[in-house]
Amino acid sequence: MSLTVVGSVAFDSVETPFGSRERMLGGSATHFALAGRFFTDVRIVGVVGRDFTDDHVDVLRTRGVNTDDLERVSDGDTFFWAGRYSWDLNSRDTLDTQLNVFADFQPKLSQESREARVLFLGNIQPDLQREVRGQCDRAAFVALDSMNLWIDIARDSLIETIRGVDCVILNDAEARQLTEEPNLARAARRIREWGPEIVVAKQGEYGAALFTDSGFFSLPGYPLETVVDPTGAGDTFAGGFVGFLAAHAGSLPSDDLYRCAMTYGSVVASFNVEEFGTERVQRLTMDEVEERFSEFERMTSFERVPLPGRA
Amino acid sequence: MSLTVVGSVAFDSVETPFGSRERMLGGSATHFALAGRFFTDVRIVGVVGRDFTDDHVDVLRTRGVNTDDLERVSDGDTFFWAGRYSWDLNSRDTLDTQLNVFADFQPKLSQESREARVLFLGNIQPDLQREVRGQCDRAAFVALDSMNLWIDIARDSLIETIRGVDCVILNDAEARQLTEEPNLARAARRIREWGPEIVVAKQGEYGAALFTDSGFFSLPGYPLETVVDPTGAGDTFAGGFVGFLAAHAGSLPSDDLYRCAMTYGSVVASFNVEEFGTERVQRLTMDEVEERFSEFERMTSFERVPLPGRA
Repeated sequence: MSLTVVGSVAFDSVETPFGSRERMLGGSATHFALAGRFFTDVRIVGVVGRDFTDDHVDVLRTRGVNTDDLERVSDGDTFFWAGRYSWDLNSRDTLDTQLNVFADFQPKLSQESREARVLFLGNIQPDLQREVRGQCDRAAFVALDSMNLWIDIARDSLIETIRGVDCVILNDAEARQLTEEPNLARAARRIREWGPEIVVAKQGEYGAALFTDSGFFSLPGYPLETVVDPTGAGDTFAGGFVGFLAAHAGSLPSDDLYRCAMTYGSVVASFNVEEFGTERVQRLTMDEVEERFSEFERMTSFERVPLPGRA
Repeated sequence: MSLTVVGSVAFDSVETPFGSRERMLGGSATHFALAGRFFTDVRIVGVVGRDFTDDHVDVLRTRGVNTDDLERVSDGDTFFWAGRYSWDLNSRDTLDTQLNVFADFQPKLSQESREARVLFLGNIQPDLQREVRGQCDRAAFVALDSMNLWIDIARDSLIETIRGVDCVILNDAEARQLTEEPNLARAARRIREWGPEIVVAKQGEYGAALFTDSGFFSLPGYPLETVVDPTGAGDTFAGGFVGFLAAHAGSLPSDDLYRCAMTYGSVVASFNVEEFGTERVQRLTMDEVEERFSEFERMTSFERVPLPGRA
């Protein structure tokens, strides 16, 4: 079952308390694809500039990501972002943003990309997300990410786009901001009333929460002693989550699948933050993924122990 | 197995977006005892003033809490706190603090209280905590809570006290502040290097995390759509957690017990915030506790679903 992702492909320069990197391969679609490919065939739709080399393309292609719809614009440069994280990694300052060729991004989906059973609309302008969603009318499952910028300047369009998808994946602060509900459970209910069957709230180091008709599910973050670079963790989570669901797109969706997908998403995201950019996920193996899945099982399991004197 | 708690007994006036209450029964030892008594016999050590009526004592006594060591000072008033919560309940302003008789609190433990198998040192001055701990030399398990005030003004004393206990229960921000470690896993390791076998980090709406020799365990917060009053949630958690462990103080401690205790603590705390002060926990039943325990099981369980084409 194939999965199409539409989003940004970028170069990131990042400073954290643990070091810095210049012009690393990044972007929401990149992080998503490198995680999703562990579970299913991924097609990436995006735009890059003349500074994007074949070696960059090969990072994706040699890991099984289909790059046929990665458009290269010869008279411009790739989207560039530079940022610096605070000492506790919980906030960051943007030092530079150069949209470059991404400013005029018009996603061009090949027939193969349009026919994907599962579609992920990465964090781009909501009108564009809706247009892409319209092109993929055979998708059985469509998920969407967004960000505070679009909530600030295009809230109505974003809500209109959300009405047409099955799953919304947001940071919990964004879910609260979007719905103007300080309570996360109410915020998720509000979003689900707009149409999506499922809402996933990403909670950074605290993990992620899932809201469906069947109720609530939550997973903690993996307790790393050293987080080197949080950039792309949310997109990596989404790639694991949606990628796993895409691998099962022939099955009826079920809470069991969603919960397992949440765990795989959390697993891959936990590796992503161990090193800069995509460094760790690039050399990640499926054995490592499965081993950490088992650790998530161990760190969340508990049993009722009877009280003395009770049945 | 009995459990002695030493801490504050207070009157709280609270304003939240959902209403307000004047001079409710509160304080760390009160919330702790009303939660712990679901699991074991609790003895409360504290001080109150002339404004503390028999009806207030009866709230504890009729629920099985032993109040023999609740000292009443006839020429002073009970500790009073007033506060107002923000719209999202994630911050609060203190409007008034009157320490009253609590300012000169010198815990006086009867022989019975000193002989408890389990001791909880609620959030009081660390020198006092250490003195009480010294009086209870037969305790098999001693847990401690504290707050940012003592980290600010009595950090060395607090660390000295921590060296003599088995378990530290703190908000995660306090654990980071105490250890000057922004990373929670490192902060917990640092505290455990000082002596305590286990560290519990309370994470508010995100739940709670447990660090032991056996590794990491985490539970989410219960996803309430309406949180009326967070006051005392942390003490209620501690009461459920330590109370459950005290009920098993004859057994060897084990990770299974700690994890189950984390869940009971989270369950009772989730009820505490549903209404003002101790209102909800006062009329809570063990059947309700067990039912919500089952909900925690449901909202954290997941299974590995094989990927198509894999073994």
